[in-house]
Amino acid sequence: MLNRVRSAVAHLVSSGGAPPPRSKSPDLPNTTSALPAAPPEAPRSPPARAGSGSAVPVKTAEARASFSRPTFLQLSPGGLRRADDHSGRAVQSPPDTGRRLPWSTGYAEVINAGKSRHNEDQACCEVVYVEGRRSVSGVPREPSRGQGLCFYYWGLFDGHAGGGAAEMASRLLHRHIREQLKDLVEILQDPSPPPLCLPSTPEAPTSSDSSHLVAPQSCWSSHKEVTHESLVVGAIENAFQLMDEQMARERRGHQVEGGCCALVVVYLLGKIYVANAGDSRAIIVRNGEIIPMSREFTPETERQRLQLLGFLKPELLGGEFTHLEFPRRVQSKELGQRMLYRDQNMTGWAYKKIELEDLRFPLVCGEGKKARVMATIGVTRGLGDHNLKVCSSTLPIKPFLSCFPEVQVYDLTQYEHCPDDVLVLGTDGLWDVTSDCEVAATVDRVLSTFEPNDPNNKLGSGDDISVFIIPLGGPGTYS
Amino acid sequence: MLNRVRSAVAHLVSSGGAPPPRSKSPDLPNTTSALPAAPPEAPRSPPARAGSGSAVPVKTAEARASFSRPTFLQLSPGGLRRADDHSGRAVQSPPDTGRRLPWSTGYAEVINAGKSRHNEDQACCEVVYVEGRRSVSGVPREPSRGQGLCFYYWGLFDGHAGGGAAEMASRLLHRHIREQLKDLVEILQDPSPPPLCLPSTPEAPTSSDSSHLVAPQSCWSSHKEVTHESLVVGAIENAFQLMDEQMARERRGHQVEGGCCALVVVYLLGKIYVANAGDSRAIIVRNGEIIPMSREFTPETERQRLQLLGFLKPELLGGEFTHLEFPRRVQSKELGQRMLYRDQNMTGWAYKKIELEDLRFPLVCGEGKKARVMATIGVTRGLGDHNLKVCSSTLPIKPFLSCFPEVQVYDLTQYEHCPDDVLVLGTDGLWDVTSDCEVAATVDRVLSTFEPNDPNNKLGSGDDISVFIIPLGGPGTYS
Repeated sequence: MLNRVRSAVAHLVSSGGAPPPRSKSPDLPNTTSALPAAPPEAPRSPPARAGSGSAVPVKTAEARASFSRPTFLQLSPGGLRRADDHSGRAVQSPPDTGRRLPWSTGYAEVINAGKSRHNEDQACCEVVYVEGRRSVSGVPREPSRGQGLCFYYWGLFDGHAGGGAAEMASRLLHRHIREQLKDLVEILQDPSPPPLCLPSTPEAPTSSDSSHLVAPQSCWSSHKEVTHESLVVGAIENAFQLMDEQMARERRGHQVEGGCCALVVVYLLGKIYVANAGDSRAIIVRNGEIIPMSREFTPETERQRLQLLGFLKPELLGGEFTHLEFPRRVQSKELGQRMLYRDQNMTGWAYKKIELEDLRFPLVCGEGKKARVMATIGVTRGLGDHNLKVCSSTLPIKPFLSCFPEVQVYDLTQYEHCPDDVLVLGTDGLWDVTSDCEVAATVDRVLSTFEPNDPNNKLGSGDDISVFIIPLGGPGTYS
Repeated sequence: MLNRVRSAVAHLVSSGGAPPPRSKSPDLPNTTSALPAAPPEAPRSPPARAGSGSAVPVKTAEARASFSRPTFLQLSPGGLRRADDHSGRAVQSPPDTGRRLPWSTGYAEVINAGKSRHNEDQACCEVVYVEGRRSVSGVPREPSRGQGLCFYYWGLFDGHAGGGAAEMASRLLHRHIREQLKDLVEILQDPSPPPLCLPSTPEAPTSSDSSHLVAPQSCWSSHKEVTHESLVVGAIENAFQLMDEQMARERRGHQVEGGCCALVVVYLLGKIYVANAGDSRAIIVRNGEIIPMSREFTPETERQRLQLLGFLKPELLGGEFTHLEFPRRVQSKELGQRMLYRDQNMTGWAYKKIELEDLRFPLVCGEGKKARVMATIGVTRGLGDHNLKVCSSTLPIKPFLSCFPEVQVYDLTQYEHCPDDVLVLGTDGLWDVTSDCEVAATVDRVLSTFEPNDPNNKLGSGDDISVFIIPLGGPGTYS
């Protein structure tokens, strides 16, 4: 099984040809513009450690001077050079000789065709043990491994404007998730509904003046049902936020440059949670059928959210941008004419008379891979980007970006799965050139024949590509 | 065909039994609380006019003192009394003897079981002619009927806290749509893409200082494609907004009390546009298959939009509400304990330590039909409600309500339709007690047998119910 999955994932990534690189990263000087492939400076070769992603602590000074690939690739110094070679673009996969990735996962990656200095994607695949923080009853529980929880974890982090945020997220995001789950260890293993309220902490006051409050209403006749599943979703959501806050705090000391899209999968207690913040994509291929497990967040898909924020908080536009959308840049000679536009409430278009402030640059512009927020960035969710400014301006873009993922849940216990049913995670480099159907067909063909005989070179992405293929049959022979 | 549709729609509405009325209207004193059924005061019996809805101008004084039903019902004074009888709850349909409704539409309504004084639903069914405003070239065009456009129009307006808004919308919303479409008469009939810019008006200045603007970016390499369809959508969206603004302007002079959900269908140039703002519902039944054509907008489905607004504009909460959601009301004795909560970014739940301001009443509370914004109103989109205040407070609720509809488009020319394929529009009174499948089954059974033989009294809604059934085969024998 493992070799078949390994073969399928390598086949997907190997479609990297040599088209001109296309950038959807921030349009910033000196960051993502195409640099000639340079040999890595003093490449760091972390010790091979099976079953761990990029979770090995990285010394700050080292991280600054170098770049890294997931430790599970077990790259030698020579292998690291090859992985960093923009012209060769060799497909990297975990070695046959090493220990398997958790859950018999397949992984493959390829560096971009020169659009950034290093591969700005990062990846992580881990089994994480969660020790309960304390008993729900308020009494600190005896540390006892038997009462903890394990989750399987996969993360793809597509960096932009530098690799720092992606690397930090690949090392730490699953730890934030573990931290959030600590409160839930007992609750999730108890079939009764979660308690609405947990015991007080010592410093809690016991009363307050609430005379100004409106009276309880009939809509409170009962309390809401909160499911175990929604607690896990909430834990993942908060972990993303805390990861983003940590990047903000440490960005100066640790040079967390750039930002990253984050696509994360957590398997816990029979359910798969797919959390996506950015434009990576997850699909399930089940018996040939494609089940989308994520949506992409771009200036186009999040236009109305962005426009609403600009409308409600015009100070965030700095007098440089308008929250209205126009089908093309308005020219000053068109003042007084009527141009097509959309505001934050509209999905359709209408004509409006052009006024002076409509000549400002639109908050959202462009189409497809060229769509941009504030003429700068092509993704609207992710981690980091705390230093990102509008080109030739001091206006921060971060307020328009959201660190929150959308989480979709798939209950593994509700379906029978055959050995070829898989969950595919890929950064946008894959999906830019390969449709869901083509990915499913490739996976199916390779898994069923186990003879990759088609070089499949018809299309090529210039982007970094990283792909996980996760068999849905379960952890399999993972040891 | 017409009699079959008429029979089907009456059958759907006749399920009104006598359960206790349930209110999802604003929880306000003296407005929607259950009053005993009173005989209508000097019922107004407008002259019967075939093919027109409530579009007959209503004198203000008359509207204040009375109530009205759609003119196409052609009710006599006695019929109007029966239509206003909360105990009898007779089903009202256009008479056999009158002229048909446009497009062989079926319509039926029944008054509520005493929850409000009169039936607060209103309806409209019209054929509307749109005269072009002027030529795209800027030269006023000769008035010429041949170059205009016709659209078919159906509207259901479910009023709350009074019938004024629903009645005004039923008389005027299609006129706002007509006004918005006037600019588009030539454009929509020209197969080439819509012009991005229309000629200037005389007073247009010709230049301005735009030196502060950022330079055009590569994302503007081309302009966006704008479709004819999206122009119609934009026209409908803007018509809703202008209708709402008119209600705000005229609420004092004309006593536009209350608000209303609006579900509107426009048939124009081969496409059906279903615009919904509220909790009415539209479904297409095609060959037994159900195609949802609307989504309901309630405090639950719009929770995150409402919370985001409260978070970004805390002044709208007046110190009385918190934008956070809790599964039940937080009690002051729970200060310092940790309670489940959701903020505007979350779909899952997590625990947070209770602080003083968490004791405020939550902006969104309750579940299902009991869900409320600011403990007051159970729908989050619609027209009117400009005077709506939080109970025992001066805090306005309107900022949280949206007048914008979601518009779904169905291309009639893309499918073959059999005579029993229909579009069903119903206010929430229908859908509270009848599922999509039951509606489809009833329509199918009645249309195919044309013998309504099942009184179908198993369920009963206490609410006003109004239903349109529109055959998809086309306007049929409308004359």
